[in-house]
Amino acid sequence: MLYQKNYLPSFKISMNEKQLNNWLSKRRSHKTSLNHSALLKGIQNGEIAALSSAITLLESSRTQDRVVAKELIKSCLPLSGKSIRIGITGVPGVGKSTFIEAFGLLCASKGYKLAVLAVDPSSEKSRGSILGDKTRMNELSQHPAVFIRPSAAGDSLGGVARKTRESIILCEAAGFDLILIETVGVGQSETAVHSMVDFFLLLMLAGAGDELQGIKRGIMEMADALVITKADGDNLSKANIAKREYQNAMHLFPANENEWIPQALVCSALENVHIDKVLETIDSYMNQTKINGSFKNKRKSQDKYWLHETIREQLILDFYRIPQVKEEVNEVEKNVVEGRWSSFDAAEYLLSLYQKNKL
Amino acid sequence: MLYQKNYLPSFKISMNEKQLNNWLSKRRSHKTSLNHSALLKGIQNGEIAALSSAITLLESSRTQDRVVAKELIKSCLPLSGKSIRIGITGVPGVGKSTFIEAFGLLCASKGYKLAVLAVDPSSEKSRGSILGDKTRMNELSQHPAVFIRPSAAGDSLGGVARKTRESIILCEAAGFDLILIETVGVGQSETAVHSMVDFFLLLMLAGAGDELQGIKRGIMEMADALVITKADGDNLSKANIAKREYQNAMHLFPANENEWIPQALVCSALENVHIDKVLETIDSYMNQTKINGSFKNKRKSQDKYWLHETIREQLILDFYRIPQVKEEVNEVEKNVVEGRWSSFDAAEYLLSLYQKNKL
Repeated sequence: MLYQKNYLPSFKISMNEKQLNNWLSKRRSHKTSLNHSALLKGIQNGEIAALSSAITLLESSRTQDRVVAKELIKSCLPLSGKSIRIGITGVPGVGKSTFIEAFGLLCASKGYKLAVLAVDPSSEKSRGSILGDKTRMNELSQHPAVFIRPSAAGDSLGGVARKTRESIILCEAAGFDLILIETVGVGQSETAVHSMVDFFLLLMLAGAGDELQGIKRGIMEMADALVITKADGDNLSKANIAKREYQNAMHLFPANENEWIPQALVCSALENVHIDKVLETIDSYMNQTKINGSFKNKRKSQDKYWLHETIREQLILDFYRIPQVKEEVNEVEKNVVEGRWSSFDAAEYLLSLYQKNKL
Repeated sequence: MLYQKNYLPSFKISMNEKQLNNWLSKRRSHKTSLNHSALLKGIQNGEIAALSSAITLLESSRTQDRVVAKELIKSCLPLSGKSIRIGITGVPGVGKSTFIEAFGLLCASKGYKLAVLAVDPSSEKSRGSILGDKTRMNELSQHPAVFIRPSAAGDSLGGVARKTRESIILCEAAGFDLILIETVGVGQSETAVHSMVDFFLLLMLAGAGDELQGIKRGIMEMADALVITKADGDNLSKANIAKREYQNAMHLFPANENEWIPQALVCSALENVHIDKVLETIDSYMNQTKINGSFKNKRKSQDKYWLHETIREQLILDFYRIPQVKEEVNEVEKNVVEGRWSSFDAAEYLLSLYQKNKL
């Protein structure tokens, strides 16, 4: 291999040898950092290598890289916004990778350019993230119209969310029509993903019971569609019953502001059955929300949300980083839990430590 | 009237003329502020007037009052924790006041001391809060074993939540067995209330449809029991159908950590039918969660939650109070929403203003 693996992780997908050499020689001539205008041009031309490097830049913690990354985001912003952003979640075992493979190939066969990103702060420990394991999406990952990028690892949820949101902008500037954002339905990442997508898809197994234990409460009510996977063989009738039950249940949910009634669907990625229904459902959703204006409104409120959420996260990170707070927080928490101190007095005390010691 | 109305809002409920005069003369002898030990003694004796004054103190913004209030909370903490804390929510029109009246009288008839508090930051504008309108709970508000206290008004949700949590401690120290905390199911207060109660009750009307528009998504999945109100007359069969539907739907929800399966119930406060089933359901819940330990664990994690939530809220309040931030935040938001600036860069900019100008 000619290139550093970490530097160009998705490189093999689209660039031929000649392009690679051209691009690398260009890169060598800018020793300190990747060149903004070269990258921007590459992204605008839909070059996967340029996109991939740009994402690597925005994942970098080097100040220099961040400066270039920020410039890039700024230049790409006016080119962004035109994709459909789709969140996909479901507990490990639900068949997410198989579904994404089948769904992705369908989208690609219809002429869509598809990017698959992930929000999974735990991905370094590979707890369930499918994207760490590209071999399971073998055919999809080799498709020329598809770009797959694992989650940035070893970071806070907020950090990963920021990088994913910025990656979306870059992918859109590179001309991707559909952006899938995958997460695992067991933690807090779902709220983050829900707040950055147009459409939120929840994958579930038939048979309410043990399988559901993994999904966190509150996630079901976020879903725009619920897809029961593995509806094949012996499972088929069970899946159809589950579909009816979920459809009934979702009718009882409070209405969405956008007037969309969440759909329950079944599909089999294995037999490639009803995968097209999922795409059709997304299409109806897009039609409805584009016409009634809620699509645009949702994007706007998401932008606002992330502005203020980023501020909140940074303030809180800064607070708990103060050495005096760090030193005492566990003891204070213990006093609260054991009923010696009210939560509010304890909070006031820690805040006073912060006031005295903040940078 | 002898006393200032705002000072002793719930006074009439329980104190006779003689007690009042005694208490007032005691109060006059401590001109600057209410006396900590007198109030504490009153609370410990279960005197409603002392409890009421103590709550007024903790609602006060005067530093002096806050100091006494804090001392009081501290002294009451070891006496607190023994009640069952029940959250009640539902949109205006669902019949909350009628339900609380019937349910409260049932509890009182069984010998329980009952306190009814409210979390409703909008109560000043009287948007739906039943407790602003005590006349609708006429019989209950006159019962000697019952204490009703409207929500502190004109404050942020965080502020109201703090006061309510502190009021719970005082009510528990005063020997109340059941504490109902009422809120309106249309805003963010539900999450706050859900985080301070043992059991969360959602009141709903039969007939999925327009009536549900008011309830916010996500609230249904929080409920430990869903009670369909007004199950009488022509409504009865509709209510029973709705009950079955909701019960089925709730079985499909992800399991609670405490293994409790949320129940769907019907009742008629008007005909006083099945109100007892609600109390029985709460009783089963208490049994189950006390035995499997989840009751205690939930309280502990709620205490932790409020510790960190209070810190978060304060940090955010301080941030948006900085004049330079205040001045620019709208313009920055506009730039973000109109796609000229990424949320994250915009956040960084506002944070830099904060860094330069913070107190």
